[in-house]
Amino acid sequence: MNFTSVTDILDVETFVQEAIALKKTPFAFQHLGKNKTLGLVFLNPSLRTRLSTQIAAQNLGMNVVIVNADKDSWALEFQDGAVMDGNTVEHIRDAAPVLGSYCDIIGVRCFPGLLSKAVDDSEHIMRQFIQWTNKPYLSLESATLHPLQSLADTITMAEHRPAHRPRVVLTWAPHIKPIPHAVANSFAEWTNRLEVDFVITHPEGYELNPRFSGNARIEYNQQKALEGADFVYVKNWSSYAEYGKILSQDTSWMLTNKHLENTNNARVMHCLPVRRNVELSDEILDGPYSLVQEQAKNRVFAAQAVLKRMLENL
Amino acid sequence: MNFTSVTDILDVETFVQEAIALKKTPFAFQHLGKNKTLGLVFLNPSLRTRLSTQIAAQNLGMNVVIVNADKDSWALEFQDGAVMDGNTVEHIRDAAPVLGSYCDIIGVRCFPGLLSKAVDDSEHIMRQFIQWTNKPYLSLESATLHPLQSLADTITMAEHRPAHRPRVVLTWAPHIKPIPHAVANSFAEWTNRLEVDFVITHPEGYELNPRFSGNARIEYNQQKALEGADFVYVKNWSSYAEYGKILSQDTSWMLTNKHLENTNNARVMHCLPVRRNVELSDEILDGPYSLVQEQAKNRVFAAQAVLKRMLENL
Amino acid sequence: MNFTSVTDILDVETFVQEAIALKKTPFAFQHLGKNKTLGLVFLNPSLRTRLSTQIAAQNLGMNVVIVNADKDSWALEFQDGAVMDGNTVEHIRDAAPVLGSYCDIIGVRCFPGLLSKAVDDSEHIMRQFIQWTNKPYLSLESATLHPLQSLADTITMAEHRPAHRPRVVLTWAPHIKPIPHAVANSFAEWTNRLEVDFVITHPEGYELNPRFSGNARIEYNQQKALEGADFVYVKNWSSYAEYGKILSQDTSWMLTNKHLENTNNARVMHCLPVRRNVELSDEILDGPYSLVQEQAKNRVFAAQAVLKRMLENL
Repeated sequence: MNFTSVTDILDVETFVQEAIALKKTPFAFQHLGKNKTLGLVFLNPSLRTRLSTQIAAQNLGMNVVIVNADKDSWALEFQDGAVMDGNTVEHIRDAAPVLGSYCDIIGVRCFPGLLSKAVDDSEHIMRQFIQWTNKPYLSLESATLHPLQSLADTITMAEHRPAHRPRVVLTWAPHIKPIPHAVANSFAEWTNRLEVDFVITHPEGYELNPRFSGNARIEYNQQKALEGADFVYVKNWSSYAEYGKILSQDTSWMLTNKHLENTNNARVMHCLPVRRNVELSDEILDGPYSLVQEQAKNRVFAAQAVLKRMLENL
Repeated sequence: MNFTSVTDILDVETFVQEAIALKKTPFAFQHLGKNKTLGLVFLNPSLRTRLSTQIAAQNLGMNVVIVNADKDSWALEFQDGAVMDGNTVEHIRDAAPVLGSYCDIIGVRCFPGLLSKAVDDSEHIMRQFIQWTNKPYLSLESATLHPLQSLADTITMAEHRPAHRPRVVLTWAPHIKPIPHAVANSFAEWTNRLEVDFVITHPEGYELNPRFSGNARIEYNQQKALEGADFVYVKNWSSYAEYGKILSQDTSWMLTNKHLENTNNARVMHCLPVRRNVELSDEILDGPYSLVQEQAKNRVFAAQAVLKRMLENL
Repeated sequence: MNFTSVTDILDVETFVQEAIALKKTPFAFQHLGKNKTLGLVFLNPSLRTRLSTQIAAQNLGMNVVIVNADKDSWALEFQDGAVMDGNTVEHIRDAAPVLGSYCDIIGVRCFPGLLSKAVDDSEHIMRQFIQWTNKPYLSLESATLHPLQSLADTITMAEHRPAHRPRVVLTWAPHIKPIPHAVANSFAEWTNRLEVDFVITHPEGYELNPRFSGNARIEYNQQKALEGADFVYVKNWSSYAEYGKILSQDTSWMLTNKHLENTNNARVMHCLPVRRNVELSDEILDGPYSLVQEQAKNRVFAAQAVLKRMLENL
């Protein structure tokens, strides 16, 4: 079993309930991971993903080994047929099988380069890890998706679900740097599987890859989109059409309490790290409607639910 | 329970004896830490603190997760209300609660900037970690204090205590760089709680913050200060009055055997790392009166005594 | 017991069989490492060595602590009598005993500088770690040798040993950088202890230190050397005579299937990381005769056999 997308989970609702159950008895399955090793490979920085995945694995009795690639280890080559007379020291075709023979499950974080849409969309790094490790693969965020985050987000919305069919809004927010699409794509992909009304709002030119946004309604007027919202997910991403470009830094898109006036007392979500007062205002982050810390806490149980299922299928 | 200063310990003498007892049976309390996680955050380099705290936690059966901030993770912002459009990626107000929700105890190393006395004295980094993690806080050295070091130093002096009331001298030593005051402040703060005669000696202008040096006698003549000493603690620090400045590099302050002639066969102490033949001479470090390795070894049992008490109070 | 060279192992053949037995029951000796700590010090990058040694230790029930020297910790000084007024912050004479008092076994990776033959041949870094930690020392590759690699190589050859007395060829390969001699020296040293015909082939000027190559036959004609080979070990190294220099980048020395035509269906070995299509061709690495992944996998059981023996002798 790999975990790279919502499409790896047949029954999202049941899976979310399993994660919520693990939250109550996190140490109930320590026998499952005994003498099993999780290998975590970080090609990019990480705080929540690094810690929550380690703790989830330890809760299940697993050992964890960590590779901070390019820092502790050797610079990796991903090009097939490369004549390696440059800066890269080891090919993924050689390194990945070693990881696969040492570990029972492999987690990898590999951000997109944001230079070539075709390269990033092909997930060429993730695919090669999957192909050459030949072990269950746990995405710690890939070029296009961040499924552990989205599972945690889905758990958080389930815990706060109103009695009525909820209205969920994913809103673009300003940022100073070109940011990957993975969290937004992934949130869209998961939310499209839920029994909710789902709206995505962003300035024109920021349309997500339709492979992930699917049938979600797109509304360019943020204020209109927010009307009646129960959950507002805030996230910046760079343009997909003009790939990796910043098209707008319109600060009026940054949510304040004022923006939420016509929502249904909406709970506000963000995956963190968040640039305060650029992406999202202090008053919301520090106010009573923020769910960001609950989302972060649920990262542990999201990872634990996935690892538990992988261990059961080893 | 937090551990940031000697003021967190009501009965220093009993606590020291507890640590000495743990040294004899380090694995006697492994049930205490079962399924508990210690999170260690390093904003600065560390050898002894990193390893001794890990080993102390493992001796108690805890799991340990480590964040090398700014390297493995995201650059942190500490300013309230900051508009985060610069180099920092995550605010302590968001990162710290995540650490708090993942871990049962949080240890943080945060050196002073040595640029602003007011900022460093306020312990603004440590205070924010304490405020926002909402979990027991273990100082791995802060801007002004290094209590785990001082506890280890106190244990070491207890193990070598002469029959008479000991004379303890803290002497400044030369160095090539501006060095924090934490070890010296902390040693003074702890030693002021012991039944000893305590003298601090340094060139004029190197007076420590009186909040920590308290009623200790200050003697500017090093040779006079050393007379009859049982323990000599060697340490460089930068000026506190002219904050963070180097006022002297007078090499005559570097201890050699000659300096110790009028002591009471004084045992010599240093927290390590030490710049040999700048702060302290080879002949002392490699001679029979050095206690530096015993201090380092006691770091494990200092950390273990503190973690044990924290676990008992969870 | 230290493990720095084949000379630390009295009976290589028995030891190899012990490692092969551990491969079948890796968790059979977890009581041996209970409450024992392995300290790993990396002065250089590492993937296989880092992970395989950690996993071997965990298989034996040990705790592992890791120091990435110069990154997580303090820059080390190795010169006796140094006046430390430069970039180094801590002397090996102070740091190593601390590691020794914290850990039960110490593993160190310390590559050569390739600037001074005398300095590297003296193994001045490794010797000081051994001298000052005063604990069993596990070489994770030193200036001149890489015995864990060679033990894994020897295990791999034992698993694929033909019925007849095998012919083993160590062949030099091109590279773009000056590379240490450790893997080649070490392979020669171990293979000289086996019941095999052993040939070393390289361009003139690339003779290894005869202390390690011993009585192995040297053949400058690669094609002649490869005739009838059962195992071909491919490795670059810089000149030992003109110490640390690159004397040849003759690409005809890079093995392709064509080179292997007159061998006895030779199995091809390399320690990894390998620069593809510089040191060794894709067609061999991805072909049916490559043993590189089996060598890598055996690194776990090589380390485990050594650690098991060390633990039994504590």
